[in-house]
Amino acid sequence: MSRSVLLLPGDGIGPEIVAEAEKVLHKVNEKFSLGLSFESALVGGAAIDAEDTPLPADTLDKARKADAILLGAVGGPKWDSLPMAKRPEKGLLGLRSNLELFANLRPAILYPQLASASSLKPEVVSGLDILIVRELTGGIYFGQPRGVRQLESGERQGYNTYQYTESEIRRIGRVAFEAAQQRGKKLCSVDKANVLEVTVLWREIMEELKSEYPDVELSHMYVDNAAMQLVKAPKQFDVIVTGNMFGDILSDEAAMLTGSIGMLPSASLNSEKQGMYEPCHGSAPDIAGQGVANPLATIISAAMMLRYSLNEDDAAAAIEAAVSKVLDQGLRTADIMSEGGKKVSTREMGEAVLSAL
Amino acid sequence: MSRSVLLLPGDGIGPEIVAEAEKVLHKVNEKFSLGLSFESALVGGAAIDAEDTPLPADTLDKARKADAILLGAVGGPKWDSLPMAKRPEKGLLGLRSNLELFANLRPAILYPQLASASSLKPEVVSGLDILIVRELTGGIYFGQPRGVRQLESGERQGYNTYQYTESEIRRIGRVAFEAAQQRGKKLCSVDKANVLEVTVLWREIMEELKSEYPDVELSHMYVDNAAMQLVKAPKQFDVIVTGNMFGDILSDEAAMLTGSIGMLPSASLNSEKQGMYEPCHGSAPDIAGQGVANPLATIISAAMMLRYSLNEDDAAAAIEAAVSKVLDQGLRTADIMSEGGKKVSTREMGEAVLSAL
Ligand SMILES: CC(C)[C@H](C(=O)O)[C@@H](O)C(=O)O
Ligand SMILES: CC(C)[C@H](C(=O)O)[C@@H](O)C(=O)O
Repeated sequence: MSRSVLLLPGDGIGPEIVAEAEKVLHKVNEKFSLGLSFESALVGGAAIDAEDTPLPADTLDKARKADAILLGAVGGPKWDSLPMAKRPEKGLLGLRSNLELFANLRPAILYPQLASASSLKPEVVSGLDILIVRELTGGIYFGQPRGVRQLESGERQGYNTYQYTESEIRRIGRVAFEAAQQRGKKLCSVDKANVLEVTVLWREIMEELKSEYPDVELSHMYVDNAAMQLVKAPKQFDVIVTGNMFGDILSDEAAMLTGSIGMLPSASLNSEKQGMYEPCHGSAPDIAGQGVANPLATIISAAMMLRYSLNEDDAAAAIEAAVSKVLDQGLRTADIMSEGGKKVSTREMGEAVLSAL
Repeated sequence: MSRSVLLLPGDGIGPEIVAEAEKVLHKVNEKFSLGLSFESALVGGAAIDAEDTPLPADTLDKARKADAILLGAVGGPKWDSLPMAKRPEKGLLGLRSNLELFANLRPAILYPQLASASSLKPEVVSGLDILIVRELTGGIYFGQPRGVRQLESGERQGYNTYQYTESEIRRIGRVAFEAAQQRGKKLCSVDKANVLEVTVLWREIMEELKSEYPDVELSHMYVDNAAMQLVKAPKQFDVIVTGNMFGDILSDEAAMLTGSIGMLPSASLNSEKQGMYEPCHGSAPDIAGQGVANPLATIISAAMMLRYSLNEDDAAAAIEAAVSKVLDQGLRTADIMSEGGKKVSTREMGEAVLSAL
């Protein structure tokens, strides 16, 4: 049985960090005889430059056939003035939606070796381990109608639609309840049910699911309060489940609590557990091409891919152990550098993980 | 000339904290011969209990006639299962919308005396002074259509509409640019223009306004990044302007950076500078009626009211100085209590401000 992995380097620092993750994947492929084959394709700005579209048909085709996808990042100022439909982000959104990758898992974990990188007090974040489950193929990101229209008064009005069906809510709810069962058995559903009807339905369906997971303690929180509580006492959370837009905001906020977003992976899964894996951080155009980006979030995303989509727990664990080892050795890219650390480049960090393997 | 102030205690801790602010207002009214007259009315859950509606006609009428309004807070679990249209929050939203209080000003200021209350490291937040300008009468809070509908498939779908017209964006943009001119001359507009069309228009209008305020440096940031940057390096911000929903989330996050949300006021103004003033925190039903709530955010809101809607800078400054003095004296309600402080009740804190005046 040969399984295929699609590499999508994308834009900005994407190619640099995916290159390091690729080496790591090749190494474990050999060492653990995983029988993985690799392909790559263009997406985002890179695809716009080469083929005038952020998601070429060939890329989508390869993505559909792949057992798993590893993505770098997309976007950058170069393409910022393009019309919405032609922007790099549409490549990413198109992959999510065409592959129905509705379940976005974003862990916010504090690496003990990097505790000092956080802007929060150590006692507030030490041992932090939250999982944010974000709905990824619905909500206001994909709702219709949308656009900019001319009103009778002559002025323009922009509009978007925030919508969820019962079944969309139910399937992401199940993923979140199941994740909570595997972890601390606490699930907090975040909504704005005191103002938005769509989230009244969200809350109702979450409540309905509760009886199927009697071992999980379900709570509800308004999104404004959740944004506050993450700052005040983040360790109160185990698993958080929320919609696409709120999840975008809260997962980035939660990631930054650790101070080392260059370390955080994410997984986007569909109902067949096919998945796209990517670092939580973006394409960082300001440091692209300089060889200073942190490849670890992408390398850890590759480990997550082995575990969730390819069922290769041993290989995943080996990568994670190697990452932990290089951190113990004091190796640090610029973003996580602190006193006493040994500053390394993107490539040096990748090589260090390879030797640790 | 007599000017009238409407007091709306509301729910939960609302009545307790407004009572203390009222005493303070009476005192400055006398001391500075302000000629203020006072009325009160019901809103939120209290109004539902008494008159079966969260915003009685009499309350709205008094609010329209008042020169300024001081509100406690609304909402609580008692009314959480009511249908959307009958919830306490509709009282608040109805006031905002009927009085066209489109400009919500939410300062996030770290009181030096309370620096240790923050969950962030002192060097990250010391001297923090951000102003969030949130659009308050448009966006997804008020967009139509909205509701829960039955699809042909038989399942239900919840939906809301996020919309802004050019003129709605322009008027809040002006308030923000003007505020920035009075402060550090830096304005950051927060949107999600890489995904949402309505915020593409938002960004365009903000850019358009720029030429009218050449002394202000305008930047744009995606909302997910803003949620991160507030945690990472909040002092990079001076004034932030954003829509209703993003403003709800980011202003609460920013408030919590200070660790003392019990200290933060807010103002909601219309184009005549008529305004409603309220603490940033909510109705805190868990501690209602116990006399332990912090009245200072409401008292500082009263000062803000004197300054912005009643043009009484001296009286406002006197209140602010009195608050600073009681903090210097070490008086602390439970929420801001720390080692070495003198713990006081709601009433004791109010009395202390009175004597400091
Ligand atoms: C690039 C952008 C479209 C994307 C999103 O908003 O989903 C990103 O912020 C993310 O969170 O993956
Ligand atoms: C109570 C609620 C409707 C309100 C809002 O969401 O605007 C509150 O959170 C606020 O920020 O004033």
